[in-house]
Amino acid sequence: MEMHHGGDVYGEVPVLLDLSVNLNPLGTPPEILAVLKDEAEKVSLYPDLQCRELRSRLSESEKIPANQIICGCGASELISLLIQCIHPGHVLLPVPAYTSYERAIRDIGQEPVYYRLKKNNGFALTSSFLPVLKAFSHPQDMLILCNPNNPTGRLTDRSLLCEIASLCREKQVFLLLDECFLSLCENEETSLKDQLEDNPYLFVLDSFTKKYAMPGLRLGMMYSSNTMILERMQSMKTEWSVSTLSQRAGIAALSLSGQYLSEAKGLIKKEKEFLTKNLVNLGFTVFPSDTCFILFYNESRPDLSSRLAEKGILIRDCRDYSGLSPGFYRIAVRSHEASLLLLQALNGF
Amino acid sequence: MEMHHGGDVYGEVPVLLDLSVNLNPLGTPPEILAVLKDEAEKVSLYPDLQCRELRSRLSESEKIPANQIICGCGASELISLLIQCIHPGHVLLPVPAYTSYERAIRDIGQEPVYYRLKKNNGFALTSSFLPVLKAFSHPQDMLILCNPNNPTGRLTDRSLLCEIASLCREKQVFLLLDECFLSLCENEETSLKDQLEDNPYLFVLDSFTKKYAMPGLRLGMMYSSNTMILERMQSMKTEWSVSTLSQRAGIAALSLSGQYLSEAKGLIKKEKEFLTKNLVNLGFTVFPSDTCFILFYNESRPDLSSRLAEKGILIRDCRDYSGLSPGFYRIAVRSHEASLLLLQALNGF
Repeated sequence: MEMHHGGDVYGEVPVLLDLSVNLNPLGTPPEILAVLKDEAEKVSLYPDLQCRELRSRLSESEKIPANQIICGCGASELISLLIQCIHPGHVLLPVPAYTSYERAIRDIGQEPVYYRLKKNNGFALTSSFLPVLKAFSHPQDMLILCNPNNPTGRLTDRSLLCEIASLCREKQVFLLLDECFLSLCENEETSLKDQLEDNPYLFVLDSFTKKYAMPGLRLGMMYSSNTMILERMQSMKTEWSVSTLSQRAGIAALSLSGQYLSEAKGLIKKEKEFLTKNLVNLGFTVFPSDTCFILFYNESRPDLSSRLAEKGILIRDCRDYSGLSPGFYRIAVRSHEASLLLLQALNGF
Repeated sequence: MEMHHGGDVYGEVPVLLDLSVNLNPLGTPPEILAVLKDEAEKVSLYPDLQCRELRSRLSESEKIPANQIICGCGASELISLLIQCIHPGHVLLPVPAYTSYERAIRDIGQEPVYYRLKKNNGFALTSSFLPVLKAFSHPQDMLILCNPNNPTGRLTDRSLLCEIASLCREKQVFLLLDECFLSLCENEETSLKDQLEDNPYLFVLDSFTKKYAMPGLRLGMMYSSNTMILERMQSMKTEWSVSTLSQRAGIAALSLSGQYLSEAKGLIKKEKEFLTKNLVNLGFTVFPSDTCFILFYNESRPDLSSRLAEKGILIRDCRDYSGLSPGFYRIAVRSHEASLLLLQALNGF
């Protein structure tokens, strides 16, 4: 089964505006670009296999011991590696969800067990999931959650997440919790990083791709107090998969002040309101999002992404997400100019 | 089992000279460094998942159809992926050989079947290997060869390689032929790239790491007319594992004139002769090498790498290679100054 992703700007038609990828709308911080230029010569060195300096800086910044951190070639490598290492009996996956989870599950010869989130409550994960998890789970099974969820942008309540995580620990079910978009939410307090120490079944995934708008570099990280599994992942990981420049860029990113992220959040909030209002006016159902992208829907408009692509605007057609159907689209929140360009094009149809 | 690699310059002791990694002694070409600096902003784009432009340029340069080329995060990713995709019944491995093959074989739960090359003929692969291959092989088995071999530096005769490759085809045994160091040999004509079209069991591995001294970027490629297996590899590969900058650097490398490589070969030849003569004078057995590194040996000097490390010089202690033992070392051929520094240190012991 062919999975699709946003961000393919390498096709035949020139791309004016790519709203199919969800990145910090401020773009790559100039401090990171400066490091890439200043340290370009370091490509003549093999990367540090263990990412020691980067992990040590992450350890300081996240207050998590360095041996509870593993870095990878984007979040993608770590998702696949964790699933390969655990080789769960069954994987429960609330959907719609990021398509790469399904790919990684199928790579070990399994099919995901879907839990269908409901459109009529904005695809929120609610406490009605708890009895399902209780009924589903056996030791060595796995649950994958994304918070905020992709493609819905929806955060799950921290109290519910804590309940899910402790149920997983109790039932010895591994929990992969993807927090890649959390740092672009107004409310970051739902992170479960503070639960890692007490829960060896919890694996929190994060990435620098979205936060610092550097998808071309590939840098993801996973946190867990289950160092036995992290060590197994390290031993199976593609050697040197985190390039020398990715490690340097990651270290530079950790020195940035909080201003870059707070400015981005301000921009996202403002533009999200503007886009939501206008998309509703254009006849779309817009689902409430807590982060840097918006899911919207109109079943009578199944051809929107191809029509926009003709005008050089990429949006994410979400029909291939399990649990969604033609007429669902996801757009990244970007500058006001980008919003105007999109709305102008939509108005013209 | 812990495998070691050269190139760990990130430890506690400062490194003056790293001879533990085998790279083009001229260093990263300035044209590639210029591209990295000029195009640093491109990290804000997702990499092309399919490496279309890079593969198209490789296709022109190698005269191999683009759909018979797959790019990866260094040769390492491609070695593991191929072994995972084929999942061979048994893997025959002439040793000593690059340690990552064994790691990848063990990752699928197998142990390699060793064929021990003989010290007394300089670890050359000879026709006495043919009956072994005939006796060993069943359909879906695999043979891994490295030409020139690492850590010995030894080329195998093209006629023998052709015989091995057609025996593999006949017996339906997959042949992974690693040619990562071939472009730094004086005689590149032993390449089997011209046999690909007729042999769907042949997979030729190459990398830009050694040739263009850019190990920090991670860029490897595999060639095969077995597009079914290449497509399976692509579908299992870590998404976006070839970063935007690696793709840009690779494209830039393909525009370089042949002068960079021919100059490097001249330097390697001259310094290899100088080092060989002097190492022999110091009481070492030096094995004949066709490429940019030298394997040498003295069983009464098992502590050489740790003693040199104290002086800031890294060499590759080869005791962990299957088929070698304490007293075997590998050094990269670098500048004349580097040779002098090494010999001076060795003279002082």
